Order: sequence, then structure tokens, then C-alpha cells
Amino acid sequence: MSGKKAVVLTSGGIDSTTAMAIARAEGYEIYSLTFNYGQRHTRELEAARKVADFFRVKKHLVIDIDLRTIGGSALTDRIDVPKGRSIDDMAHEIPVTYVPARNTIFLSYALAWAEVLQAADILIGVNAVDYSGYPDCRPEFIAAFERLANLATKAAVEGKLRMHIRAPLISMKKAEIIRKGIELGVDYGLTHSCYDPSPEGKACGRCDSCILRRRGFEDAGVPDPTVYHDGSL
Amino acid sequence: MSGKKAVVLTSGGIDSTTAMAIARAEGYEIYSLTFNYGQRHTRELEAARKVADFFRVKKHLVIDIDLRTIGGSALTDRIDVPKGRSIDDMAHEIPVTYVPARNTIFLSYALAWAEVLQAADILIGVNAVDYSGYPDCRPEFIAAFERLANLATKAAVEGKLRMHIRAPLISMKKAEIIRKGIELGVDYGLTHSCYDPSPEGKACGRCDSCILRRRGFEDAGVPDPTVYHDGSL
Repeated sequence: MSGKKAVVLTSGGIDSTTAMAIARAEGYEIYSLTFNYGQRHTRELEAARKVADFFRVKKHLVIDIDLRTIGGSALTDRIDVPKGRSIDDMAHEIPVTYVPARNTIFLSYALAWAEVLQAADILIGVNAVDYSGYPDCRPEFIAAFERLANLATKAAVEGKLRMHIRAPLISMKKAEIIRKGIELGVDYGLTHSCYDPSPEGKACGRCDSCILRRRGFEDAGVPDPTVYHDGSL
Repeated sequence: MSGKKAVVLTSGGIDSTTAMAIARAEGYEIYSLTFNYGQRHTRELEAARKVADFFRVKKHLVIDIDLRTIGGSALTDRIDVPKGRSIDDMAHEIPVTYVPARNTIFLSYALAWAEVLQAADILIGVNAVDYSGYPDCRPEFIAAFERLANLATKAAVEGKLRMHIRAPLISMKKAEIIRKGIELGVDYGLTHSCYDPSPEGKACGRCDSCILRRRGFEDAGVPDPTVYHDGSL
């Protein structure tokens, strides 16, 4: 054991799974952190657990947070998830699937856990290229959080831990992310991306997240292992 | 109604209650936010509710967050709360009652709610004078969070909301805070400070928080309305 620990935010999707593969390849002891935040797609939680098992993480922690009491998002409220949008549309507005301050909340918990574990690195699978709609997926947000982290904690203030918030995919396109993951041995059949799966957990194929996923596999020239609700592959 | 909204972090203690009195005096419509975070002193939650009622807030939201799964603090773990420390001791080390990244987590939720409410101001009752042991009570932490807030949210990025994290007590001593509150009509009998109350909710009188509270009333020359477990007043 190297003793080099990382907290990896794990959603069960392509990006966080690839971030975890990178952490594994770099020799980190991995602590995976998943949130049950009242999202419609609890199928994510199952995928996150499978991914954590696949990478033999040291510990997998699921934290319940109730963002429904706060509201403001199609992922937690009774707002329709948009379907059939073009990637161009996605790039030009912040969608209703935006969850207020989600990555700020997620990183705050990761920071708390990292401090307890004495882990200097937090990995988050955000990327700002294909889909720049979310403000809390941008490099300037990640940099501001890292700065905050080093002021916020006892471990940092006492000089015992210099925190790094790492977003290794931030400047990669979806297809590059998939190629990177394949190279590192990721089984994307374990992952889940759909915002609005069928009751049996099948992907809809038409929400923003499915569209980006499908296109990513296409562009990467890799078969998409996802089973879509509409029967297409 | 002025329409000027503020989210006020509300613990039921002296500082957050005084921050709320300041928000009230400034004419804000108040949205009070309290956390049930597995702290030993759930008596706080009751006090927070009473304070919110007293100031006729627009809405009082209690969010359950389970910091016990993360651990690392005497307030959430089975670590003894220190008793009988001098104020000098308190000033020279970060105590075991420190909860990792607590204010970062609290402010993240406040930010999410503020965005949904379209409230530009978040008030937090931290102060850095009497008791500088907590890293996340310092002005540089508050400033870093404000910077983050304006990068993290859709409302800020779209230019609809310029977020302010206000810590109006940050440079006040406990006695000044109490005098300010009295001037604004606060009934401190509603508040609760003790880290380790008796089963009936009486203050221990000997933890850091009780010691600072007692000394604050003494220095302010104001009677302390607290009923202490040891029978003293």
C-alpha cells in the first residue's frame, strides 16, 4: 500500500468512473463517495456501488442528502427532464437538470471526509468541453474550491495537509474520456448515465445525458454497452 | 415587503440569533436554515425553532445531514467534550469539538437555497475574536466562500444575483455581540449554547461554549438567563 489516499466522487456515470480508473492507475488508495440526493435516477446508486466494487475501493460511502427540500431542479423536483435536444442547444443554456450548488455541496462533504482520512486529493469527474452548461463544472470553480479547502480545514491550516481538488477530465471531450477509460480497463457496462430511466432501470436514450453518452461512444468508435428503453443499441 | 431576502444560518446560539436580529433590523425577509447533523446537543434544534418564531421568519428549514458517517469530531462522535478549559487554552488550539468542514457544508446548502429563493445575502454568525480556534470562522474563509459562490451558481454566472456572504459579528467580542442583541430586542433566554447539556436540556456550565457564554454576559454586564445544570445562574 502506498498510503496515498484519494476521495473520488462517484456517480456511477462515465466521467466519475473514468476519474476513478485514473486514480487507480496512479496508485491511490480510493475512498469513493456517492450521494443519494433524491435524484430521480436512483439507478445511479447501484451503478456507483458496482463501479466501486470493480475498482476494489478501500471504502464506499453513500451519504443521504435531501436536496428536494431545497428544490429548483428537474433532477429532484417535478419538472420534466428535456428530451431530444441537440448538443448545440445543450451548449447554449444552463438546463433545468441543473441542481443548485450541487458540486459545491458534494465537494464540501468530500473535503470533510478527506480531512478525517488525511487524504490530500479529491478527484471529481467534471468536464467543461462537451457540455459547458453547468457553472460548477468549470476550471475556475474547481480552482476556487481548492483555495477554499486550504482555508477551511484544521489539517490545512495546521500545515498537515495541502488539499488538491483534481478534475482530470476537465478539458477532455466525451469520446476522449471513453477512450482513456477503455485504455485503463473500464467496463462501461457497469455505468449509468440516463436522467430518466424506465422503472426497470433502462436508459431513455433521449435525455441530454443519454444523447451525450451515445455520441461519445460513436465518436470514440467503441460499442456502447447501454441497453436503451427504446430497444436501440 | 421589501423583497430583500436573506438566508440566515441558525443554530439557536447567541451568535446566529444576534445575526438574525441584525437581518431583521435591516429589513430582510428572513429564511432561516438549521442543520440536524447528529450533534449531541439536539436541544439546539429546539432553540433554533424558537428563535425563528421569535423573529417571524418567512420560512424555517431544518436539513438533516449525517456527519456521523464521516466522523472526526467530539460533537458527532464518541469523543469526550472538554470541560473547564481556560479561555486562553481555547485560543491556542483547535479543539476536538471542531467538526470537519462544517461551515463549508452549511454554507453550501445555504447557497443552494439562496439560489432557489433568489436571495443575494447569506448571513452567518461566526466570530473570530474571542475564539479563533476554528479555521472556518475566519474572515479569509468567508471571503473565499463568497468568491466561490459567485462562480458556482447559475444565478451568479448569468448575472442575476451577486452573492454576498455576510458575517456581521466577525470582529465583535462575545460581550459586544450580546450588547448588540439586547439593543435589538433579542431574548437570549430562547437561545442555547452548551455542547453537552443534561438529558433535560440544561447547560453544563463547564464546556468551552458555556464558559464563553457566561463570560460574555458577565463582560456585557447583562444577567445571563441560562439555567445551568450545576444550579448556578
